[in-house]
Amino acid sequence: MKISTSCALAAFLAACSSAPTALYATPVDTVVRKPRPRYIPGEIPDPDYVRIFDTTLRDGEQSPGATLTSQEKLEIARMLAKLGVDIIEAGFPIASPDDFAAVKQIGDLVGNEVDDDGYVPVICGLSRAFPKDIERAWDAVKGAKYPRIHTFIATSPIHMETKLMKTPDEVVEIAVNAVKFAKSLGCNDIEFSPEDAGRSDPEFLLRILSAVIKEGATTLNIPDTTGWNMPWEFGGLIKTLRENVEGADKVVFSTHCQNDLGLATANSLAGALNGARQLECTINGIGERAGNASLEEIVMALALKGDSNFQGGPGTGRLYTSINPVYISPTSKMVSEYTGMICQPHKAIVGANAFKHESGIHQDGMIKNKSTYEIMTPESIGLMRGDSQSGAGIVLGKHSGRNAIGTRLKELGYDLDQDKLNAVFDRFKQVAEKKKGGLEDEELEALVLDQAGMTNSLWKITGLQVSTGMSGIPTATVKMIGPDMVERYVATTGTGPVDAVYKAIDLILGVSVELETYQMSAVNEGIEAMAVTRVTISPKEGGPNDAPSINAQSGEFTNRKFSGSGSDTDIMTSSARAYVSAINKLLSWNARRSQKLAADQTKLDADEGKITSESVAAEPMSVTEIA
Amino acid sequence: MKISTSCALAAFLAACSSAPTALYATPVDTVVRKPRPRYIPGEIPDPDYVRIFDTTLRDGEQSPGATLTSQEKLEIARMLAKLGVDIIEAGFPIASPDDFAAVKQIGDLVGNEVDDDGYVPVICGLSRAFPKDIERAWDAVKGAKYPRIHTFIATSPIHMETKLMKTPDEVVEIAVNAVKFAKSLGCNDIEFSPEDAGRSDPEFLLRILSAVIKEGATTLNIPDTTGWNMPWEFGGLIKTLRENVEGADKVVFSTHCQNDLGLATANSLAGALNGARQLECTINGIGERAGNASLEEIVMALALKGDSNFQGGPGTGRLYTSINPVYISPTSKMVSEYTGMICQPHKAIVGANAFKHESGIHQDGMIKNKSTYEIMTPESIGLMRGDSQSGAGIVLGKHSGRNAIGTRLKELGYDLDQDKLNAVFDRFKQVAEKKKGGLEDEELEALVLDQAGMTNSLWKITGLQVSTGMSGIPTATVKMIGPDMVERYVATTGTGPVDAVYKAIDLILGVSVELETYQMSAVNEGIEAMAVTRVTISPKEGGPNDAPSINAQSGEFTNRKFSGSGSDTDIMTSSARAYVSAINKLLSWNARRSQKLAADQTKLDADEGKITSESVAAEPMSVTEIA
Repeated sequence: MKISTSCALAAFLAACSSAPTALYATPVDTVVRKPRPRYIPGEIPDPDYVRIFDTTLRDGEQSPGATLTSQEKLEIARMLAKLGVDIIEAGFPIASPDDFAAVKQIGDLVGNEVDDDGYVPVICGLSRAFPKDIERAWDAVKGAKYPRIHTFIATSPIHMETKLMKTPDEVVEIAVNAVKFAKSLGCNDIEFSPEDAGRSDPEFLLRILSAVIKEGATTLNIPDTTGWNMPWEFGGLIKTLRENVEGADKVVFSTHCQNDLGLATANSLAGALNGARQLECTINGIGERAGNASLEEIVMALALKGDSNFQGGPGTGRLYTSINPVYISPTSKMVSEYTGMICQPHKAIVGANAFKHESGIHQDGMIKNKSTYEIMTPESIGLMRGDSQSGAGIVLGKHSGRNAIGTRLKELGYDLDQDKLNAVFDRFKQVAEKKKGGLEDEELEALVLDQAGMTNSLWKITGLQVSTGMSGIPTATVKMIGPDMVERYVATTGTGPVDAVYKAIDLILGVSVELETYQMSAVNEGIEAMAVTRVTISPKEGGPNDAPSINAQSGEFTNRKFSGSGSDTDIMTSSARAYVSAINKLLSWNARRSQKLAADQTKLDADEGKITSESVAAEPMSVTEIA
Repeated sequence: MKISTSCALAAFLAACSSAPTALYATPVDTVVRKPRPRYIPGEIPDPDYVRIFDTTLRDGEQSPGATLTSQEKLEIARMLAKLGVDIIEAGFPIASPDDFAAVKQIGDLVGNEVDDDGYVPVICGLSRAFPKDIERAWDAVKGAKYPRIHTFIATSPIHMETKLMKTPDEVVEIAVNAVKFAKSLGCNDIEFSPEDAGRSDPEFLLRILSAVIKEGATTLNIPDTTGWNMPWEFGGLIKTLRENVEGADKVVFSTHCQNDLGLATANSLAGALNGARQLECTINGIGERAGNASLEEIVMALALKGDSNFQGGPGTGRLYTSINPVYISPTSKMVSEYTGMICQPHKAIVGANAFKHESGIHQDGMIKNKSTYEIMTPESIGLMRGDSQSGAGIVLGKHSGRNAIGTRLKELGYDLDQDKLNAVFDRFKQVAEKKKGGLEDEELEALVLDQAGMTNSLWKITGLQVSTGMSGIPTATVKMIGPDMVERYVATTGTGPVDAVYKAIDLILGVSVELETYQMSAVNEGIEAMAVTRVTISPKEGGPNDAPSINAQSGEFTNRKFSGSGSDTDIMTSSARAYVSAINKLLSWNARRSQKLAADQTKLDADEGKITSESVAAEPMSVTEIA
């Protein structure tokens, strides 16, 4: 088998000469969804069907500061199921006890919530190519109706030499053994990724991929880990592999494209054009460095153009997914709030400006025919046009009852349980008392998110008083109630008022954290608008609140960062709530870790010194010492 | 001439089968720059050279809220010249008197600042295909060494029918006359764009493009106005046009790709692959809706892969630009601060996380070999690694002198004149007095930007006092000094403290504006960090501070929005400064408009009723009434 590495782009040129052009595009109002084919691990009954593999909870959560609590992960997983993604990569179970618990909960719950059409998402856990990782991943996902293990090892020369310090032969052996081990656990849905495939030798990829198919791998994922490929280059790689890997007909080819040059979406689509039938992506395109391919961009590109522009692979080339795009906007908002990773205003599809046109005194062109400048409508992705245009704005004031709030929140896509609704309603009453004009939808949503950060909160702020200005010394008095129900208060000064408030909170809580980021924005227009504050904190390294977990790529321990948000009409109050919410997250995460360590200790004692695979889960593993 | 519209993607597939793959990528530390070919309007002496056409000041500034002052535009244009862009589209001169003045100033100054290598950017002005627009554009740019007129008309069926209400024959006639008219003014560098080319009939494009070449168009720009095209589709369009337009050898083909599906960068690169030798783009990818192709993504993709992956057009296919990428990061920061359009953390190349790796306890992999996960170094785009890593941090405290501040700012890329340095130094002393730990680089930069918003300020805040908290009524006292040098003060209450402060400012100034957006963030880590506040305001429609200008696409008047920013250790002070800075921008803009209208009136009186082309510049023109 010979793979030419010379350039054959003259053929691309020829292909381009008669690309189809739709002369008249009408904006997509609602996307017609074809029935989803039955789920079988290594094959798709309809060769035109493209599986959407969402890795927001794994690769996305790896972004600096994007740490999610188990509860937030569960809520996002439920939203992803509403959106209709085929596979949810729920996490990297060996990273920490909290990561394991989150994946297991999603597998046990969301992985068994079969809808009326028989759909339930596959729940996938990531593992390095080590038995301990794989066992841990399998324990986490095996409760799901369709569990999947995703295992990987790097295959590029630079990664094998520098990071793994292994020969290619050793790498093939590790990969083969990993897939064999996963199979031996009873898993029949195994995904394998050659990390940094975009910079790997295609000959070597053919060898390792052919080998893992023999052991039972059912999905072959091709990651462009460093975002190095041009679309035609990556498309070419997929084509080469699909045509030359031995046993290619027994597996589904997948793309996983990083965005370092801004090409992740284009590369994923070039993969689909060339026969990849699983596309890995994240909501809002979040992920380490420049992030991943955006689910919303890939899905809407296929919804708009899948029918006419993808005749490059098997089947008729009229590609489709089963994503219900009206959930795109709510999912995007939830992920952005929970991770603290905000989209820029000009982010495609979900950015604040994506459907905003510079408003004219007469917006004739737009009103006459929206498709002049819009290739899809905001409604198609679940975004309702602003109140000023539709006139449908609902404002809730201090006399509005619990039912009215619950009903409006349900209309906005928030289905809260009674406890949570009560908590949101209490906050609503506090805020509505101060805000005479009443609360608009965005403000109501901000309160839901503010309250989300306070669920199971360990510490609460009960009083706050601030005095500041251009001259004089910023001074804050903070009163808090702790898990012991004792109220404490302290007054401090600071460089600025936020500094003063945060110092006061630190004094009361006695925590050892650093403020990494601090952001605030008004949730809607007007000077009376509520503000939402978002912060990221990290425990001081080696300090009492250290929060280590294993990084999937480097194999090293990293200190988790935690985000928090708070909303109020008073920016000092929202700032204080955000900080306390982040600290509460950190403290809960640590509490779970301590429980886990204590339980392991008990187990260790009981087993008279026998170390279980679980008890080492929270220990670091160097890449060299295993394998 | 026959153009097939059937799909020929099998050929793309063939092309992909042997795309070149570099097996080992070493990160780009410094980009080797070849000499820039001599500038000739309709031809490029080296067929491998790709011109970079920056439209940040025109298309980017069209983003909602991104309005820039003439001074800010001039600073950005100077930075773009340092970056080495070939063409600066400086604005849409007929839009308003302020837009005209800004383009003229850039043409007269930056357009004549020839560097030691003989380089000076082409200065381009946009105009619709109407004589009045073209005349105004020419008046604005003709002072530049290399002036260019860019004229356009829509060619897609939906735009011609719905927006223009013209037949294709009429559209061709208007385009031909526009180019002829531009030529008659003495302009020999004429760019023509068929708007919405991505959804136009290729046959019609061939007709109109062939016709404008005959009249002297030298650059043919192909806009995918609604972001509708897939990369192979757009590449195909460029190829079709380049091969079939009559007189194609006399012009340079150009791309202009919108980002509605996240494909703007990929489409631009597919254009280059197929022979486009001018790429239009904006810094940070800003622009209406989902924005434009990002200059930094296009430029770095060509720097990394131009040598090996672009053999699709004329020449050897070893493409290069003359951009000096070490100015990418400073330019990105400047544009983001001045426009208020913030990049998301995972924005490729210039996002805060683009080079940030989740920090491990041991970052061995990264330290050992940066190229494991980095395909370019942050230094290559002018971003210095954080102080914590390099240990090179410099902290300036209250005893630091004016020279130390000036020197450090120069090292950071800010070359301030004496007045500005004095103003920044005064602010530095104020802030350093309060901030015991001294100021880091990011904080010094924030002060430069804070001060930029106060240059020629009409109103200044001289005193501020705020009291707020969870109970009690937020109360603010504000003292200001106006252009009349009279000091006024007022105390007010509000829903929150920002509300109270802004109401007080409104009361003193008597302006009629609405707050559109309000954002704040800490400029670096730690609770003592300075905060920068960014706001956008819009004048109330029809009110005394109305700020109308013509939208290039719709041809309608739109009300300008203005952004402002302020920095301080005290968030109430930074909030107040940001609001006043935005209002000062609005008032200056309006002052210029009033001067212009008064001058026109004088001229009108002098001419005894003869209306000059300039006096109607600020009037709206419906598309039907002209032509």
